[in-house]
Amino acid sequence: MSSTAGQVIRCKAAVAWEAGKPLVIEEVEVAPPQANEVRLKILFTSLCHTDVYFWEAKGQTPLFPRIFGHEAGGIVESVGEGVTDLEPGDHVLPVFTGECKECRHCKSEESNMCDLLRINTDRGVMLNDGKTRFSINGQPIYHFVGTSTFSEYTVCHVGSVSKINPAAPLDKVCVLSCGISTGLGATLNVAKPPKGSSVAVFGLGAVGLAAAEGARIAGASRIIGVDLNSSRFEEAKKFGVNEFVNPKDHNKPVQEVIAEMTDGGVDRAVECTGSIQAMISAFECVHDGWGVAVLVGVPNKDDAFKTHPVNLLNERTLKGTFFGNYKPRTDLPSVVEKYMSKELELEKFITHSISFSEINKAFDYMLKGESIRCIIRMDA
Amino acid sequence: MSSTAGQVIRCKAAVAWEAGKPLVIEEVEVAPPQANEVRLKILFTSLCHTDVYFWEAKGQTPLFPRIFGHEAGGIVESVGEGVTDLEPGDHVLPVFTGECKECRHCKSEESNMCDLLRINTDRGVMLNDGKTRFSINGQPIYHFVGTSTFSEYTVCHVGSVSKINPAAPLDKVCVLSCGISTGLGATLNVAKPPKGSSVAVFGLGAVGLAAAEGARIAGASRIIGVDLNSSRFEEAKKFGVNEFVNPKDHNKPVQEVIAEMTDGGVDRAVECTGSIQAMISAFECVHDGWGVAVLVGVPNKDDAFKTHPVNLLNERTLKGTFFGNYKPRTDLPSVVEKYMSKELELEKFITHSISFSEINKAFDYMLKGESIRCIIRMDA
Ligand SMILES: NC(=O)c1ccc[n+]([C@@H]2O[C@H](COP(=O)([O-])OP(=O)(O)OC[C@H]3O[C@@H](n4cnc5c(N)ncnc54)[C@H](O)[C@@H]3O)[C@@H](O)[C@H]2O)c1
Ligand SMILES: NC(=O)c1ccc[n+]([C@@H]2O[C@H](COP(=O)([O-])OP(=O)(O)OC[C@H]3O[C@@H](n4cnc5c(N)ncnc54)[C@H](O)[C@@H]3O)[C@@H](O)[C@H]2O)c1
Ligand SMILES: [Zn+2]
Ligand SMILES: [Zn+2]
Ligand SMILES: [Zn+2]
Ligand SMILES: [Zn+2]
Repeated sequence: MSSTAGQVIRCKAAVAWEAGKPLVIEEVEVAPPQANEVRLKILFTSLCHTDVYFWEAKGQTPLFPRIFGHEAGGIVESVGEGVTDLEPGDHVLPVFTGECKECRHCKSEESNMCDLLRINTDRGVMLNDGKTRFSINGQPIYHFVGTSTFSEYTVCHVGSVSKINPAAPLDKVCVLSCGISTGLGATLNVAKPPKGSSVAVFGLGAVGLAAAEGARIAGASRIIGVDLNSSRFEEAKKFGVNEFVNPKDHNKPVQEVIAEMTDGGVDRAVECTGSIQAMISAFECVHDGWGVAVLVGVPNKDDAFKTHPVNLLNERTLKGTFFGNYKPRTDLPSVVEKYMSKELELEKFITHSISFSEINKAFDYMLKGESIRCIIRMDA
Repeated sequence: MSSTAGQVIRCKAAVAWEAGKPLVIEEVEVAPPQANEVRLKILFTSLCHTDVYFWEAKGQTPLFPRIFGHEAGGIVESVGEGVTDLEPGDHVLPVFTGECKECRHCKSEESNMCDLLRINTDRGVMLNDGKTRFSINGQPIYHFVGTSTFSEYTVCHVGSVSKINPAAPLDKVCVLSCGISTGLGATLNVAKPPKGSSVAVFGLGAVGLAAAEGARIAGASRIIGVDLNSSRFEEAKKFGVNEFVNPKDHNKPVQEVIAEMTDGGVDRAVECTGSIQAMISAFECVHDGWGVAVLVGVPNKDDAFKTHPVNLLNERTLKGTFFGNYKPRTDLPSVVEKYMSKELELEKFITHSISFSEINKAFDYMLKGESIRCIIRMDA
């Protein structure tokens, strides 16, 4: 039992006071975990587009002050009442979407969309009492997607915490909390390209590069990267992408370009852009008879997916995925093992590393499109 | 070797001389099979909507005079050069879509959309020489989808003929040539409902009833029939349908009605209507996390399938199927065995039986919606 168990911990956290304004490192109070909660010491965290999106608060109701952050690696400091699956000292990845292990989704072999702990970007409080565990001089500071990892200590629901191999380096595997697992799982769990097959990846950001990494691991022989930004292509080669298409270079729809390159279409396509046009192209570029397209990107509210039904009747499959269909507690430990066995390469996703005090730099790198992942070291 | 081998056979056929006009029983000449062709003696045939659709010729370029018919059971009379898979006396089902066993589709485990012999409703001639095998006093009579079973004898490409168990009663299993296998396979091969699951079937015609029969065989516990015509419901009970929804009885979209009935959606939906609205509803009524919707109906040329992409991202799967994903030569024999072992019930699909001379009655029954399948006995 750590000496801090049951006590309020005072520590540093990067607080977002206002939409779009630089985070401020503050001393915050972190209350002890309540029933079914755990308190984590965060060692490494990284920044994902979703943090930036809700920090900018352009599309949603703003909720401030808030502590962002949802990709991280840490160690359990203490556990609340009724927690039996975790104990102090366990190495863990907090995850933005949880797994209660009790609901219909958790009991289904196929779904990871837990009824209780499914991502909720509007909620800034804990489920147990509807309150925050963070405060500054009594002022509550809101949580973000149940993780709030831009803090030396944070409190999570036990269902949102995945226990992993303690030998795994947390400064690397922390990136598996969100985007990398999302792209990797989209390919490995959902698209499932056979060995020797062709795979088109739409969008070569972190998620798309992870989808390509999945195709490389699966043994796909042609991995076609599609991006509107040709400057992504050089980097993508490291991830197994061996052909490139920029839709802007062609005066016909990109699905036709790909069909011509591949004698009728690719075996699999994975869309990682959020653009509705890319979603439609990804579906229409797969081969009839056996092609499978997987949608990953988060679309705009008013987008409509539209295609001629004959594209479906010709035996194409269209699927979407959320967090790569991984169940966070059940499946993430095995993804960490894929890294440990050197099957999965994570180093190439990590383009930057900074100390916690420099956290706003991570936002700059991402907004300029310079980084894939920037690791933030909490102890520095 | 039959005494007719190599000879022209004169026999009776029901010829469609003009769009929408009653068929006329004529004496036709049936030339011997050429390379990779076989000549069949048809014993039983049945009528499918597709025959009626091309006979009415409202939507396509008319091709007349023509011999329709594509659901049938028969016996090989003689074989052409190079045919090694079939011999005279074999019991067979001709099929409107073939399996060459050589192309990429035939070699893929997943596809049945053979490049060489995929359904072609525009072609009225044989592949080998681009000519017809039917004639009346030298006037060519066109083929239909490579089968033309409304004739005592017909010539088919060997790839369009499935050899079945000779013990199977051809007056029953002939209905497996098209619609019944289409619906059955849509459920058993594509939707694959787990035991105890819920399945919505849109459209309770022959194809939808066969989809329901597939759900019954798979052990689904709730089989929800959806049709705009409530008079279909009584009949559907025989096929395992145990709940009914008529979209006209509700003032909200049928997908919402079904979601309410099933705590969030059915596990599987199979659309067998051809209506684009039903296709969209079938997709949107499956449960997030694990739901699978399968489209079977043939849509109009200008229809657009339209849905919000979040319906996909929430881990729903959308697929289409053609002939229930059965490969005609490889897979149909095992469907016949399902009937032989009494797992699959075919009798309930057969509502009428008439002699060949009465063939126009079969069109009347179908146009009035009175029949599921009407068997036409060629020898009578
Ligand atoms: N489903 C999930 O669980 C999950 C998790 C994390 C991220 N995401 C989503 O995945 C998507 C990708 O995330 P990311 O972090 O890699 O984003 P990113 O912005 O780094 O990368 C997206 C890439 O797509 C390219 N692009 C945009 N429109 C395109 C088009 N029409 N055709 C081709 N390329 C196009 C951009 O140039 C960019 O390189 C986002 O929509 C994100 O919200 C989903
Ligand atoms: N894909 C294939 O291989 C294949 C093979 C054969 C038939 N089909 C297609 O399958 C479909 C069904 O064939 P069938 O012979 O059973 O047709 P059918 O006309 O006998 O039955 C269709 C049923 O759907 C109902 N319906 C129509 N619109 C509806 C709606 N919006 N909501 C609910 N119910 C609706 C009708 O009332 C009717 O009972 C057709 O489109 C046909 O072309 C496909
Ligand atoms: Zn759950
Ligand atoms: Zn993220
Ligand atoms: Zn073929
Ligand atoms: Zn048919």
